[in-house]
Amino acid sequence: MSTTGLREYLDGPHKAARDLVRDGLAANADLLDAGLELSRAEYRDKVLAVMQQVTAEGHTGRGFPKEFGGQGDLGGFIAGFETLAFGDLSLMVKAGVQFGLFAGAILHLGTSRHHDEYLTDAIEGRLLGCFAMTETGHGSNVQALGTTATYDPATEEFVVHTPTAAARKDYIGNAARHGRMATVFAQLVVGGESHGVHCLLVPIRTPDGEPLPGVTLSDCGAKLGLNGVDNGRIVFDQVRVPRTALLDRYAQVDAEGTYSSEIENPDRRFFTMLGTLVQGRVSVGGAAINASKVALTIAIRYADRRRQFGAPGSADEALLLDYRMHQRRLLPLLARTYALHFAQAELVDEFVRLFGGEDVIDKDEHDQRALEAQAAGTKALGTWHATETIQMCREACGGAGYLAENRLATLKADTDVFTTFEGDNTVLLQLVAKGLLTNYRESFGKLDPLGTARFIAAQAVEIAVEKTALRTVVERLRDVVPNRNDTSDPDAGLRDDAYHCGMLRFREQHMLAGVARRLKRGIDDGVEAFEVFNRCQDHVIAAGRAHVERVVLEAFLAAVQAAPEGTARERLKELYDLHALATIEADRAWYIEHGRLSGPRSKAITALVNELCAAVRPYAGELVDAFGVPGAAVDVPMVVPSQHE
Amino acid sequence: MSTTGLREYLDGPHKAARDLVRDGLAANADLLDAGLELSRAEYRDKVLAVMQQVTAEGHTGRGFPKEFGGQGDLGGFIAGFETLAFGDLSLMVKAGVQFGLFAGAILHLGTSRHHDEYLTDAIEGRLLGCFAMTETGHGSNVQALGTTATYDPATEEFVVHTPTAAARKDYIGNAARHGRMATVFAQLVVGGESHGVHCLLVPIRTPDGEPLPGVTLSDCGAKLGLNGVDNGRIVFDQVRVPRTALLDRYAQVDAEGTYSSEIENPDRRFFTMLGTLVQGRVSVGGAAINASKVALTIAIRYADRRRQFGAPGSADEALLLDYRMHQRRLLPLLARTYALHFAQAELVDEFVRLFGGEDVIDKDEHDQRALEAQAAGTKALGTWHATETIQMCREACGGAGYLAENRLATLKADTDVFTTFEGDNTVLLQLVAKGLLTNYRESFGKLDPLGTARFIAAQAVEIAVEKTALRTVVERLRDVVPNRNDTSDPDAGLRDDAYHCGMLRFREQHMLAGVARRLKRGIDDGVEAFEVFNRCQDHVIAAGRAHVERVVLEAFLAAVQAAPEGTARERLKELYDLHALATIEADRAWYIEHGRLSGPRSKAITALVNELCAAVRPYAGELVDAFGVPGAAVDVPMVVPSQHE
Repeated sequence: MSTTGLREYLDGPHKAARDLVRDGLAANADLLDAGLELSRAEYRDKVLAVMQQVTAEGHTGRGFPKEFGGQGDLGGFIAGFETLAFGDLSLMVKAGVQFGLFAGAILHLGTSRHHDEYLTDAIEGRLLGCFAMTETGHGSNVQALGTTATYDPATEEFVVHTPTAAARKDYIGNAARHGRMATVFAQLVVGGESHGVHCLLVPIRTPDGEPLPGVTLSDCGAKLGLNGVDNGRIVFDQVRVPRTALLDRYAQVDAEGTYSSEIENPDRRFFTMLGTLVQGRVSVGGAAINASKVALTIAIRYADRRRQFGAPGSADEALLLDYRMHQRRLLPLLARTYALHFAQAELVDEFVRLFGGEDVIDKDEHDQRALEAQAAGTKALGTWHATETIQMCREACGGAGYLAENRLATLKADTDVFTTFEGDNTVLLQLVAKGLLTNYRESFGKLDPLGTARFIAAQAVEIAVEKTALRTVVERLRDVVPNRNDTSDPDAGLRDDAYHCGMLRFREQHMLAGVARRLKRGIDDGVEAFEVFNRCQDHVIAAGRAHVERVVLEAFLAAVQAAPEGTARERLKELYDLHALATIEADRAWYIEHGRLSGPRSKAITALVNELCAAVRPYAGELVDAFGVPGAAVDVPMVVPSQHE
Repeated sequence: MSTTGLREYLDGPHKAARDLVRDGLAANADLLDAGLELSRAEYRDKVLAVMQQVTAEGHTGRGFPKEFGGQGDLGGFIAGFETLAFGDLSLMVKAGVQFGLFAGAILHLGTSRHHDEYLTDAIEGRLLGCFAMTETGHGSNVQALGTTATYDPATEEFVVHTPTAAARKDYIGNAARHGRMATVFAQLVVGGESHGVHCLLVPIRTPDGEPLPGVTLSDCGAKLGLNGVDNGRIVFDQVRVPRTALLDRYAQVDAEGTYSSEIENPDRRFFTMLGTLVQGRVSVGGAAINASKVALTIAIRYADRRRQFGAPGSADEALLLDYRMHQRRLLPLLARTYALHFAQAELVDEFVRLFGGEDVIDKDEHDQRALEAQAAGTKALGTWHATETIQMCREACGGAGYLAENRLATLKADTDVFTTFEGDNTVLLQLVAKGLLTNYRESFGKLDPLGTARFIAAQAVEIAVEKTALRTVVERLRDVVPNRNDTSDPDAGLRDDAYHCGMLRFREQHMLAGVARRLKRGIDDGVEAFEVFNRCQDHVIAAGRAHVERVVLEAFLAAVQAAPEGTARERLKELYDLHALATIEADRAWYIEHGRLSGPRSKAITALVNELCAAVRPYAGELVDAFGVPGAAVDVPMVVPSQHE
């Protein structure tokens, strides 16, 4: 136990699940170097072998129902998955494809016949599968996928087909080498009528690994990172599967070819199906945040032992971490990592609340949409944070940081795609903003970025913002957060958490109100919907981001308030202050432009961020210790040279 | 020839040198994929083979004197080297180590006996060499290197030795596999007295590739990128070399062991020697800018053909490049790439002016120091720009951008270390600021970040800023750039180049004056020098950056004014406006804090940047065509699928 109890506090209720994965990573430490020396094919096979071993130990089934060999512990499952990000990220992604996406699709979109036939084999890693959604031509716009699944009542089969080059399934994990079956997303055509995108189980390889007739498999080849995952491409040439291959929880096709669904609206049906897959976004966000912890642990420990240039009167050169610029580069990122950690924990709690039970369709739709938006937002900010943090850590370790043996290189390369997969971050922030603008009332709107503009255009809705609600909020905030420009002391209240939250709430509401006004005005003026949306796309995305940043800040504050009294809470509060003020500082231009910050107060914030960096610096080492990253992942030569001599 | 003549204008006076390298890259296109499929050892050997072939064609000797087989064309040499960055970057770095660093050190630090004995072989690639400066313990602080070279008058030899683990030579290109000799930087000890860092020629391998006695060579192993370069480590155990191994242009040791130098001050001597190596920084900056061009060519062409999500009433989905957010992400980076291109061209002109002649020591010291500062600044901004641009291009191409076949992955990995090698960027910007603060009067100051504070402390100099010069400049600027806050039209004059330059000059001078005041006040108050410096390190670095940004802006403006009349100049002016306003926008908080921008005017700038993105968008394809990147480097599957079917 750490002296301050911070590590236990960070691990939270799923400590046991995290520790089990930590032990597994330590036991498989050799995997961490495997990607550097093995051929791509060998590395992929090694990752599979470790995955199957971890599976045998029961980690990966934790989130599944007990009747299929799981433990019914969704929260522990996510926590364990996040912890995999402390180790080899190919292993994490491979496990995510197999258990989160492939088995998850069977669980959530299938019914008992699919569960009984496939789930235990999938969970126990005997049936390796792919999640074949993305196509060469369509990633973000899933509703426009080109693959078709046409029902043939004569044989009671679906014919799965790739009609164009753009409809080729692409970047599919497990497709190049190991997958034997795929959950294929395709336009379902029954009786000549298209019912939109549905999911079917399609075998793609024999047990010997040969492609099945009509299935063409190829390899995406080398990637920037994650080369232990066998991403590939799948082309279907009139491949026939039985009628029962349709994962038919939300829509059924009977033998005669009659399509039915209890969800009448096709958009709503599509988004209900997609909504069950939110776990992927929840998991990737958490993994990205944990990858940031690995990088910060390495870079901060290095900066606390590496010296360069002299301090006058001292025989030693100065430690890197004693330089202001070095503190400035690393410590606000450390603070934000804590903030995101607590926001992620909140998200997982809410996810477990909604998905921990049995049925999906009956849960409150508003809550479900709000969860999806929160998962999207946390994923976007968490993955961009990982990219920024790992890059900064690499640079902060100079040439040593460029060597693979010091692990930052691999972390950087492996995590880079996180901003893209499970939803492109810019598209996700648009989704967040849209949910807020409509208060999730348009419960099954399109992911399409035009959706918001269309919604406003088509329904001529009274925009809440313009009328009452948001305006009131904004005015109330003006009272709660007095404009300190008036006071003679620009430092007054800068460490008051009500001030921080008020500032972030004000920005969020003001941005949302502004977007709503601009959208409405454009539509009212008869401008074409695409043009209306496009003119304020940057504004929409900024509003989405402002919302998520506010939620993250408040999650951090709540965690400070709930922390054990004493040193742990004091340190968390100081770190929280650093995060809050660095967040305001980063967007201080906006606050000044909108009259919420004076020039002198803005400068005072910058000065205070510097002071807080210096205040946090002496215990920065403890703060990274509290992440509990296993030694195998962080005891690299530049940090612990004695272990590598 | 492009329709607007832009390509010819960008290529400038060294077009022939650039085209020769372009042809060579096209002829060796297979090297571009070599790093993906070959083993590390095979890839390194392939890079060497191509380098020797290119050498045989005479490209690499271009910058050397004719008597050693060169062409005496320094400008063409740099232009050709930059152009290598359009291709495989391991080849570029390998060539940089061999010809720029190793042969360059012999040329600049050696005398005729070294030139006669080694230069032709080095230039023609028969004698492969290392540049052994950096050590495990010291990169930025070269004056503190630990390797020693102790003169033994009994045998008339120097004894080269690695006294500690930290003094091991590290990250040395060509050391792991191919290098046979090294230019070793070591503390020169003669008659028991240390004379500071000097450079010696030390053989390290036999012609068969075996390490010589006393020399221990090892491999740095896998790196994030540049795996075609064999970086390694060198440890010397009392290795003896003849007295003539000392590169003795600036200091000599006679047979009896008498040290002499025409430069008496040891600091001045050290920085004179180091100054001759400025070519490395000039080259890396140019290479980084060119790598950005490759990434932008790929990402902009992709965005101009890739569609996603629908525009209402249209059968087609919208092109990515028609989305505002996509324009916002890519086009200001395109504009900045042009700006940096012209700043780099100016730098190369000045470099050729100073170094194109025969003797180094007689050139104007002020000019020499100013050139070093400019090279440092352009290197810092150019390499950070490359990291940011390539990252953004990768994300803008989504999953396709993550596949190695589309080249952004390799570009990202290979260029990442540019921000670190040839000088860490944060250290370099401190160097820039220091030169400005002292007006290069402290002509041979330490690179040490404390140098500035010490200079002010020790010499009790009247800080120019406080007294007259800078204050006058700042006041004059207040007149030239009226505070537009007063005017009723916040858009007035936003596209006036005098306004842009005035804003950037004001910021530079104001920041420098502020730093000078803070340093002086700290010293006057008796604060310890390290603490004085450290408290405003972020401010020092910001001032250095502000200076370089102003120089870059003015270089772009000068290039617009000198461009051929007509479409080319009009487009360049529009792109220049985008760059200028995006630069001001990025730091608008500072301008508002310092009373140079009102809130409404700041918002008007943001709106105008959006408008300029839309204005540039229709000819963005032409702007990347004008870079003239060979097809082999950019005709990737996601851009030209038909070539890869």
